[in-house]
Amino acid sequence: MTAPITICIVGLGLMGGSLALALRQASVTTAQQDAARITLHASRITGVSRRAETLAAALASGAVDAVTSDLAAGVADADVVVLATPGRTILRQLPQVGRHAKTGALILDLGSTKAEICAAMADLPAGLQPVGGHPMCGKEIAGFAAAEAGLFRDRPFVLCPLPRTAAAALEQARLLACAVGARPIVLDPATHDRAAAAISHLPYAVSVALVNAVAAADDPLAWSLAASGFRDTSRLAASDVEMMLDILLTNREAVLDWLDAFAGQLAALRAALSAHDEDALRSQLTAAQARRTGMKF
Amino acid sequence: MTAPITICIVGLGLMGGSLALALRQASVTTAQQDAARITLHASRITGVSRRAETLAAALASGAVDAVTSDLAAGVADADVVVLATPGRTILRQLPQVGRHAKTGALILDLGSTKAEICAAMADLPAGLQPVGGHPMCGKEIAGFAAAEAGLFRDRPFVLCPLPRTAAAALEQARLLACAVGARPIVLDPATHDRAAAAISHLPYAVSVALVNAVAAADDPLAWSLAASGFRDTSRLAASDVEMMLDILLTNREAVLDWLDAFAGQLAALRAALSAHDEDALRSQLTAAQARRTGMKF
Repeated sequence: MTAPITICIVGLGLMGGSLALALRQASVTTAQQDAARITLHASRITGVSRRAETLAAALASGAVDAVTSDLAAGVADADVVVLATPGRTILRQLPQVGRHAKTGALILDLGSTKAEICAAMADLPAGLQPVGGHPMCGKEIAGFAAAEAGLFRDRPFVLCPLPRTAAAALEQARLLACAVGARPIVLDPATHDRAAAAISHLPYAVSVALVNAVAAADDPLAWSLAASGFRDTSRLAASDVEMMLDILLTNREAVLDWLDAFAGQLAALRAALSAHDEDALRSQLTAAQARRTGMKF
Repeated sequence: MTAPITICIVGLGLMGGSLALALRQASVTTAQQDAARITLHASRITGVSRRAETLAAALASGAVDAVTSDLAAGVADADVVVLATPGRTILRQLPQVGRHAKTGALILDLGSTKAEICAAMADLPAGLQPVGGHPMCGKEIAGFAAAEAGLFRDRPFVLCPLPRTAAAALEQARLLACAVGARPIVLDPATHDRAAAAISHLPYAVSVALVNAVAAADDPLAWSLAASGFRDTSRLAASDVEMMLDILLTNREAVLDWLDAFAGQLAALRAALSAHDEDALRSQLTAAQARRTGMKF
């Protein structure tokens, strides 16, 4: 990554758009990050999207140097291909990327689950360098209009190299993560997926069930009284449905396991309340309070 | 409420402290609210707390004119007594307030559940004017240090008059709510408790179970990856435990009902995911997204 490179970002929604903006505006502090910034500032960025208005907006914002709706053309001359589409779209696009990407290119994705994507990456031609990626950040609003350069700042950026991935390719992915202000963390796909299910996919499912439970009662009064507590606990339910479907369906086993663990905790709380067992209830509430109060975000 | 009055606030934590500060700093826009402001600005406010440091802090801040740790002495000359202690403390304090409050005084509480408190208020001496109250606002931080004058601004302030309550007393409570910037809403206690269980107590229970489920796995990696989604969904778990115990135990039936409704929604989501039933899953996620996106806070 010492010479100027060409980066192709496929998908210019919240994640892809933010990555392009961040690469343009990267401001960094460490020596490693400075090296990344210098190189990446000299880079050419191509944006790929199916939607003409997204391409126009990305070009107008200066986030990308060139745009195309043709995946094959976009990836053809790229040193780095970043797949920033939803999880199952990435799975569909990988074979085409494999046919058209140039030998030696780093193939990085930003999908929210890693096991299925990394397994599919194993089928890429031997000359390509695949690394699964997942920046641990997001918003419940989707699309390029929601993109912002600061999205990755100080957030973990998980990287999952394959057994075949060259060290230099992983290093290139690490520099890219640093360049956008994130903290790269190398994990194996299964470990990532289990942790992401706990702290991201389970909260989403819980938030959906909460909204649907209150909605089922169809009580306008309850909605009118909702305050910051309901607002925050239910925020994730507003997330993009197709993206979340991809996440849940490509991380099904881990999500099911965490749903069961959660249901067990909720049943324990219900049992203590139902039995008027104040000590058991206090012990559960106190444990949660101590853990949550100790968390830093 | 046309002449200057004396208000005694019992409990100077987040709610009581904020009420005192708000009464001091009330800025209002409607004619009704102006009338309330003029009267209440001329009021004398007495603060009651068991803790000397809380009394000193409240006095130093200018939120109250006088302080005492003696409930009987504090309420003796008050035209309005506001009980801003946790729910079960209110239940314990009501008989003593009944013995010492002066005839004609408005007895208003700020407890988060209303059925048990309003039932206990029915036992107050006939000369007193009880109104159950619940400002729908809060923070997960407790204590006078967390108090702020703007806490009630534009928030619903539920008022539950008893059958015996004089119209003038309810009007006085309504003016007080307006004076601190809140929107008074008159409800019967059971209706309030059921709605509050849905939009406040259920989200708290869900948040506790979420934190305890992830904590049970004892995985430092998961915690280190937690981002804004987990932060918001779990925020309520940091709430004051004794306050929340009082709320859950004094609103037990309604909370249990909502826990069951929630568990039903979660089981439906789990079943769709387990069966790989994409259409059913999409329909649940879409319903929640539409509802949540339409909410205004």
